[in-house]
Amino acid sequence: MKNSSPIIDCLQYSNWSKKTFEQMNEGNVSAVHVTICYHEDFRETVENVSKWNERFQEFDQYIFHGQYAADIDAAKESGRTAIFYGFQNCSPIEDDIGLVEVWHQLGARFMQLSYNNQSLLATGCYEANDPGITRMGKQVIKEMNRVGMVVDMSHSAHRSTLEAIDLSQRPIAITHANPASWHNALRNKPDAVLTALAQNGGMLGFSMYPHHLRNKSDCTLDDFCDMIKRAADVMGVDHIGFGSDLCQDQPDSVVEWMRNGTWTKDKDFGEGSASAPGFPAQPEWFRDNRDFPGIIDALRQHGFSQEEVGKIAGGNWYRFYADSFTLG
Amino acid sequence: MKNSSPIIDCLQYSNWSKKTFEQMNEGNVSAVHVTICYHEDFRETVENVSKWNERFQEFDQYIFHGQYAADIDAAKESGRTAIFYGFQNCSPIEDDIGLVEVWHQLGARFMQLSYNNQSLLATGCYEANDPGITRMGKQVIKEMNRVGMVVDMSHSAHRSTLEAIDLSQRPIAITHANPASWHNALRNKPDAVLTALAQNGGMLGFSMYPHHLRNKSDCTLDDFCDMIKRAADVMGVDHIGFGSDLCQDQPDSVVEWMRNGTWTKDKDFGEGSASAPGFPAQPEWFRDNRDFPGIIDALRQHGFSQEEVGKIAGGNWYRFYADSFTLG
Repeated sequence: MKNSSPIIDCLQYSNWSKKTFEQMNEGNVSAVHVTICYHEDFRETVENVSKWNERFQEFDQYIFHGQYAADIDAAKESGRTAIFYGFQNCSPIEDDIGLVEVWHQLGARFMQLSYNNQSLLATGCYEANDPGITRMGKQVIKEMNRVGMVVDMSHSAHRSTLEAIDLSQRPIAITHANPASWHNALRNKPDAVLTALAQNGGMLGFSMYPHHLRNKSDCTLDDFCDMIKRAADVMGVDHIGFGSDLCQDQPDSVVEWMRNGTWTKDKDFGEGSASAPGFPAQPEWFRDNRDFPGIIDALRQHGFSQEEVGKIAGGNWYRFYADSFTLG
Repeated sequence: MKNSSPIIDCLQYSNWSKKTFEQMNEGNVSAVHVTICYHEDFRETVENVSKWNERFQEFDQYIFHGQYAADIDAAKESGRTAIFYGFQNCSPIEDDIGLVEVWHQLGARFMQLSYNNQSLLATGCYEANDPGITRMGKQVIKEMNRVGMVVDMSHSAHRSTLEAIDLSQRPIAITHANPASWHNALRNKPDAVLTALAQNGGMLGFSMYPHHLRNKSDCTLDDFCDMIKRAADVMGVDHIGFGSDLCQDQPDSVVEWMRNGTWTKDKDFGEGSASAPGFPAQPEWFRDNRDFPGIIDALRQHGFSQEEVGKIAGGNWYRFYADSFTLG
């Protein structure tokens, strides 16, 4: 890495181990936004915080708990990785708006308003109909704006996303998704959403999860970089970054749980299918955190300047973290 | 009472005391569906079950826990009142479909799919937009049908209600509301909903809560009986009963909690207003359970036959309870 921007990945949910943390350091990744909730309620998510506290103690030579942008600088200086918390669902606040601030105190910095299904706040991208942000959703967005928790609409439906962009007084994020114009998956976003996001100061993190990639596991790095080039044209180079959605070393039971939680007695296959129900194989150019420098080199070869590459690799997320996590 | 049908009230949420239970017996009310949850989660609702267990022990000369229609016969024979449980919201099942059967085991017989706001299952009547039953809602209706828990759409929005009527394999209920054609309140139901409800074997319980009555607290018993007469013409006399929504002896803090729960930091006045935020005064002809015989006499005077009055007073609910609470 020749540029001075940090590398930041704005979404991972791996089966955490010494190996995964070592690889973060090896890949020169200074900050990772990790998911600490898919379906868990308040108490269950607190348990995940407790597990992270144990990891921070055991693996403190590699990682520590990141709370503010300054922690990214500290990580870069010490060659470690700052771990920032986020939720893929609003279940940790249950039906209690007071828990937004409690969660900020515990370190949560991103909360998706819905995960695939309808939530108390917004609609998920798998619902047939999307009525937009609910009564409680409007209240919660206001409270998230106040305390410094970022609205994340990665798994939300489009109308809800557009309304969240509009209602939020602070820029929001789509931490892990790609343009639907490149690969038309339910989880990818149409240009109308992406331009509204950018115009309001928001950020898109590019997903490297095969279901969000053109040709899935066979997607080439060239094609991925072309997509980023086009997204930069549509959104501006200041509003894009990485959000790999890396689920390293997870057993297939985890993706089954992500999709089904406890909401259904039928089996839902989400982006998979009955014949391919498990995690798809990662593309060969992104198997783990050590591959970020290679992707960054490829972006440079695709015509981005060194400054632009620095923004995409982490500079933009750095600015966004600095602007977003303190009292509004 | 000259007819042999029991008197059944399909919704009350009073500040329970020896007095309220004595009055149930004095009014010859053999069964009451009581609300044991507005906003409570699983554990909090279990606490309410525990409180009812204490009441059943302390006041067993007046009341006991009703689980099946046969308990209404037992209540009538012993001059007591069978207490059936229901939820005004789906919060006691949280996001876990497995809790539907657990709750049936604990005695819950009615569950509203939403209470004023959007829930995980359906839309409430105060939301601006109603997308209908959600993905989880479809699963939960199927499970409620299986175990014998009644779908109640009293506080739900109209599209969600029509879809629930359609999706449910067993008749559903609107336990406490009135026709909007009589008094156009947000909580009252248009004829399209009422006829669909009745055509699918469902039941409407007439509310005596002033915000649901024409002229509110000043509504006359004559006008109330006229409304029932018209509803019988629209829905058929086999699909109507009482669902008084009696909130006797409750402090105004309770209606504030009903409306605001923990979902908002602003204050919501619901059917009230900033200048009249509390519980409205009951109409003089329905202050407590002792007034049911007077209402029944008035219905007889409004041209209903003795058999028809018996159906409205409790015969219909008796049949509905008998058909609804066992395995489907």
